[in-house]
Amino acid sequence: MSEIIQPRVLKGFRDFLPQAEMERAALVEALTATFRSSGFVPIDTPALEYSEILLGKAGGETEKQIYRFADNGGRDVALRFDLTVPLARFMAEHSSELYLPFRRYHMAKVWRGENTQRGRYREFMQCDFDIVGVDTASADFDIVSTIALAMRALGVPGAAIHVNHRGVFNRFLEKAGIADKSVETLRVVDKLSKIGAAETRTLLAELVGGSAADEILEFIRGGEGFEATLARMTAIAGGPNPDSDRLAELFEMADACGLGGSVRLAPSITRGLDYYTGVVFETFLAEIPEIGSVCSGGRYNDLASLYTKQRLPGVGAAIGLDRLLAALEAIGKSAKPAGYTKVLVVNADPSLCAEYQAAAASLRAAGVACEVFPEARKLGQQYAYAEIKGARFALVRGPEEKARGAWLLRNLSDRSNAEYDSLEAALAALSALEG
Amino acid sequence: MSEIIQPRVLKGFRDFLPQAEMERAALVEALTATFRSSGFVPIDTPALEYSEILLGKAGGETEKQIYRFADNGGRDVALRFDLTVPLARFMAEHSSELYLPFRRYHMAKVWRGENTQRGRYREFMQCDFDIVGVDTASADFDIVSTIALAMRALGVPGAAIHVNHRGVFNRFLEKAGIADKSVETLRVVDKLSKIGAAETRTLLAELVGGSAADEILEFIRGGEGFEATLARMTAIAGGPNPDSDRLAELFEMADACGLGGSVRLAPSITRGLDYYTGVVFETFLAEIPEIGSVCSGGRYNDLASLYTKQRLPGVGAAIGLDRLLAALEAIGKSAKPAGYTKVLVVNADPSLCAEYQAAAASLRAAGVACEVFPEARKLGQQYAYAEIKGARFALVRGPEEKARGAWLLRNLSDRSNAEYDSLEAALAALSALEG
Repeated sequence: MSEIIQPRVLKGFRDFLPQAEMERAALVEALTATFRSSGFVPIDTPALEYSEILLGKAGGETEKQIYRFADNGGRDVALRFDLTVPLARFMAEHSSELYLPFRRYHMAKVWRGENTQRGRYREFMQCDFDIVGVDTASADFDIVSTIALAMRALGVPGAAIHVNHRGVFNRFLEKAGIADKSVETLRVVDKLSKIGAAETRTLLAELVGGSAADEILEFIRGGEGFEATLARMTAIAGGPNPDSDRLAELFEMADACGLGGSVRLAPSITRGLDYYTGVVFETFLAEIPEIGSVCSGGRYNDLASLYTKQRLPGVGAAIGLDRLLAALEAIGKSAKPAGYTKVLVVNADPSLCAEYQAAAASLRAAGVACEVFPEARKLGQQYAYAEIKGARFALVRGPEEKARGAWLLRNLSDRSNAEYDSLEAALAALSALEG
Repeated sequence: MSEIIQPRVLKGFRDFLPQAEMERAALVEALTATFRSSGFVPIDTPALEYSEILLGKAGGETEKQIYRFADNGGRDVALRFDLTVPLARFMAEHSSELYLPFRRYHMAKVWRGENTQRGRYREFMQCDFDIVGVDTASADFDIVSTIALAMRALGVPGAAIHVNHRGVFNRFLEKAGIADKSVETLRVVDKLSKIGAAETRTLLAELVGGSAADEILEFIRGGEGFEATLARMTAIAGGPNPDSDRLAELFEMADACGLGGSVRLAPSITRGLDYYTGVVFETFLAEIPEIGSVCSGGRYNDLASLYTKQRLPGVGAAIGLDRLLAALEAIGKSAKPAGYTKVLVVNADPSLCAEYQAAAASLRAAGVACEVFPEARKLGQQYAYAEIKGARFALVRGPEEKARGAWLLRNLSDRSNAEYDSLEAALAALSALEG
């Protein structure tokens, strides 16, 4: 006998056992239904692409994290590290076959060779949804509305969607005379929720001086209602402007749809150094804010400029499925599918297997998920298996029942048995009990 | 402005545009429902694994076709090329956390750097379903039954499931005194349907002589009913034996479930050099047999012997989704989802966008998938977009309708309009029309 190869997965990679995968499937199905209810259509792109395509815009940090290699034909290829770059390439390549505005969702794996010390995975699932081809408040709101619908579908209706606009922030920086420090300022402000106001002020004071630091802190101060915060921000940024107007329109739509209480203006949100140019979003769960944003995104002026001269504005967001799963788990709201099997057809006598299989076929034809236990093990073992599979009933026919033409239906919760004088009668009883 | 990077995908890789991806999604959803109705549960494994794990059993041919490279940590890694090897590793690694019999389905991408000349893809989706942990006719039949249910769910109920047993074939070879040529014989016999009887006889005669070649051809002759063919095969192979009994049991179950006409005993099927040790399956569509088997599989005595000393017998099959999609397309039975959007809320006046979005929110709350056109373009353009999205109705409110408190509902098929004096009335009418 040859030596055993130690079974193991790569660090940062995971197997999903049935319970975990059923939870993930339930989440993906809820999100799919949500996206479709708002007119988003699915696309798919290759896991592997030319490195030139994927790395076009990315800096050195991305390059270090990517899975990149030469394929058998010597091509320089890489595994995708997000779904936004592939969308940009896709839009550029297929613009003549597509229509605008284009609403798409894409739920798929991405790979990053990150340091796994921080509990990050090297393979994870992204759920992106974007609207490409228009630059309007209505499209911006569609993303907000879809985030709210998605959170409701997942059983967390109290999610707070924090909204801001990069443009208003930039106007303020311009007016405060610190536009040349915008990148560094954005980077510090983005950390506010993590490091607190005092530490933020210290860092900002080092960067732009104490007085400008105080102005910034006043600008990013939130906590009032949407309209009051917007009025204050707009005033500090130099008065009425199209970017503030965009935020006002967005809020008007949210209010009209009953989402006024869920959408908050959060002037400190900047999404760090991301490529957003307009509104930006982050989504926090009231019961577990410390896990951070479970759905983030924003508007970008020009999605695909690396691959086409056609200007393609867009707006979108991405749900980090792993973080969301962890959050739902933490607050006890994860979907815990009991299993798909409703009835186990017990294998009491292998010579009756054809009857068991015929009974199972009848159950399935009646819409009842079921399975025949494929071996004549002890009844206790078969019932234990039924419990693992989440089955509520067992259908039993041993030699004695066979002799008197009967079928037993066992309720696995209370362990009660009922005997029926035909399979049809047992199925009818089951339908009544299931209903 | 920087230079444009030519947008393109790697040879053998594909983008799925919405229509194609919606078709694939419909197929995957139908298969998912089928698997769940028969007690299969989902698992997932990493796309990337240690090469040692994936290549353990594979020969030189696989090694040439695999995407293999050193990751940033210098590990020798590869993209999975099927879902069976990962299942074997998974079962060995998690045996203490799992229960047997274990029924799992796994639908996921696999990658092979094959020569793409023959119309093959380098990235494609496999749909595997297996039962691990038992070696019984009932489990074998579960796979046959699931194949039949899957084909029915996909709208091709007339699929023929060809069944054979490796063991009966081996008994025959033994009796004919050509067991030492079994590998070569299996390889030739496997080509029968492609090269025809005459060419098969020529190749076999070269291999084992004319008289043995005639015996083989007599053995693999099909065409009679299941029971007659089985009786003839069994006699030629030396009389009653457990492998023939297994086939008889399998057929008894198929017959009891009304599948007697779909399951055919095809003694020429050997699945070439695959690792099967018991029953083997292939599935052909009556309307397009030339596309070959759309679902194949069989029983293997020992799935995970490379990774564990625990003996894990199993039986399963895999659907080649791409081949099946092509087959369904060819016979006009592919799912052609019209689109998910049922109603387009027309953007007749951007200042009314909050009302449009509120109407859309009401529609969604009533279970009607809809979207607001996000920009105030010409009505003709918006209706053309609605058609692309498969919407059947448009909800319209321009300044005139607004002035008289009305909403228009436009039937996009016959271009008729109906006016309602409230949104509620329009929604009620829509529900009646949709129902």
